[in-house]
Amino acid sequence: MGRWEPNARGRLAQAALELYAEQGFDRTTVAEITARAGLTERTFFRHFADKREVLFYGTEMAKDLLVRVVAEAPAAATPMDAVGSALEAVAAVFEENPERVRLRDAVVSAHAELRERELGKLAGLAEALADALRGRGTPEPAASLAAEAGIAVFKVAFARWIGEPDRADLPGILRASMAELGTAFAARASV
Amino acid sequence: MGRWEPNARGRLAQAALELYAEQGFDRTTVAEITARAGLTERTFFRHFADKREVLFYGTEMAKDLLVRVVAEAPAAATPMDAVGSALEAVAAVFEENPERVRLRDAVVSAHAELRERELGKLAGLAEALADALRGRGTPEPAASLAAEAGIAVFKVAFARWIGEPDRADLPGILRASMAELGTAFAARASV
Repeated sequence: MGRWEPNARGRLAQAALELYAEQGFDRTTVAEITARAGLTERTFFRHFADKREVLFYGTEMAKDLLVRVVAEAPAAATPMDAVGSALEAVAAVFEENPERVRLRDAVVSAHAELRERELGKLAGLAEALADALRGRGTPEPAASLAAEAGIAVFKVAFARWIGEPDRADLPGILRASMAELGTAFAARASV
Repeated sequence: MGRWEPNARGRLAQAALELYAEQGFDRTTVAEITARAGLTERTFFRHFADKREVLFYGTEMAKDLLVRVVAEAPAAATPMDAVGSALEAVAAVFEENPERVRLRDAVVSAHAELRERELGKLAGLAEALADALRGRGTPEPAASLAAEAGIAVFKVAFARWIGEPDRADLPGILRASMAELGTAFAARASV
């Protein structure tokens, strides 16, 4: 990545998201994206495998962050605590550029194939979380249960955040949702 | 559906699963499926929209069952109890023909596109569960949290069941997994 293209990846992603939102994902070409970003197609393909991956490269960054926070959680942290901290760290990143996150969500939500791709990526995040928990000694099935439940809570918290554009506190919504699910489990009769 | 084709749907599904497992999903044609089942293509398309739907018609039946059990749960049942009962009912259906469930899982797991389709169907089950909970008065986000967490637990329990062919008790594994996740939430420090 040359120094003569400052933040090429970010400019390409922003141009792509705007075009997908304006005219649809299917109708947008890489040529249009690079024209709007003022960059070449060669630069585009240095950063992204195809126009779909523009929507999902953030997931790989989220995965790295989740794994790192779980690995660095205090030894005394329970699996659910470690997962909660990791998801809050991702939520905090989302808050750095909420407009872009909302724009991306609108594009993905409008397209059945992209929605299924998103679910596949979320399943990959759960697997990475479970793997990180096993790496710090959490046995199965506790590791997979904490990881899958954490991603489930994140999905619900994220949908609430999307539905309330004025309430820009995804980490707070996530924490409250995690506590509410804990209460729901504690209230069960059939334990 | 004519009376002269007893259990046509089941025969077609069994023939399709066998062929998908033997020679791959992509390489199998509807003509091969109907030949093995001893039925016509016209009959096939009366039961299934395409060869992919053979793998997913069970999901619609699972959805109906989940919704019915949640709707009929006692008024005093908590959301997690209602979800647990509904998922156990589906697990019990799986135990009626575990070989077919395992064969289907092997086919879907071997194929990236089918795996993503499966995740989309699971997301649809979570939405139906949340909808059924709201129908009995559970507010949001409690309804979505219980539904998504329930599906998360089902995923983990199902994977354990698949991994332990000798231990054919999916309802039991599901119940134990639900209890274990409750314990994990109760052990959290950051409540």
